[in-house]
Amino acid sequence: MKLPVSTEWLLHCTATLAQLEPGASASAAQLALYYDVPAAYLAKQLQELVKAGVLTATTGPRGGFRLARPASEITLLRIVEAVDGTSAPYECREIRQQGRGALAPEECRSICVLAEKMAEAHEAWRSSLAGVSLADVIATLPATAPARTRSRLASTRPS
Amino acid sequence: MKLPVSTEWLLHCTATLAQLEPGASASAAQLALYYDVPAAYLAKQLQELVKAGVLTATTGPRGGFRLARPASEITLLRIVEAVDGTSAPYECREIRQQGRGALAPEECRSICVLAEKMAEAHEAWRSSLAGVSLADVIATLPATAPARTRSRLASTRPS
Repeated sequence: MKLPVSTEWLLHCTATLAQLEPGASASAAQLALYYDVPAAYLAKQLQELVKAGVLTATTGPRGGFRLARPASEITLLRIVEAVDGTSAPYECREIRQQGRGALAPEECRSICVLAEKMAEAHEAWRSSLAGVSLADVIATLPATAPARTRSRLASTRPS
Repeated sequence: MKLPVSTEWLLHCTATLAQLEPGASASAAQLALYYDVPAAYLAKQLQELVKAGVLTATTGPRGGFRLARPASEITLLRIVEAVDGTSAPYECREIRQQGRGALAPEECRSICVLAEKMAEAHEAWRSSLAGVSLADVIATLPATAPARTRSRLASTRPS
């Protein structure tokens, strides 16, 4: 059970964008330099976050990506599910209905108790991540962090 | 983020073994017929559960697998981690320390807040599964289920 390596990139990139001045944006190339990650793949992943309503893409010479909504309204769950999809890690293929031990269909109208417990665990994971917003993350950083982030990100802009 | 297909098999097989009479066991071949799953691969996975202390393997003509401890002491977490391993799905590769935005090592003595929140979510998932034992699962079945399970499992024994 593994999340893609890019999950870390996107969590960090969105946290970085959350530190920009209102209306400011950063390009995929800038963010790739900022974190030393592959620009083309990062750009694709940033587009997934646009589709998911986490980011807005702007065009023009100073164009790039910015948060599509306030940082307090973007949860870690939303970012992680935009990167990895929303399907649960446990798949129930109804093996209770196959083989010599097969239960009759009328005994399987309710969800299998094992699938139910696995789904509850996944919901516990989702709830935990849904309870943390980018604003919560930024609030844990030193007070000087956002200004430094903006200045270092500006240094990645082509001159 | 996906669990192996065999997770379902092993959750069901252990729940089946939890319904046997004390001291009774079932072979990999029997369980494979019971659920119509590949016997060789199932046998390997059952051995993983032996290593993890969930099952005991017995030899002899009536040999096979049985629970290594009371069903009340075997949690779903233990079974799932025996199948899939114990590593967390999110991997922090410390990208905060690389690229133009790299933080100094002395600023990274504490865990990254994003890694911390991802770890908390994984712990929520683990706690949920650690709170459900095989005995809890069996307790949800109809009172007639264990006798039927035993009888059908006996029908898979080579005569």
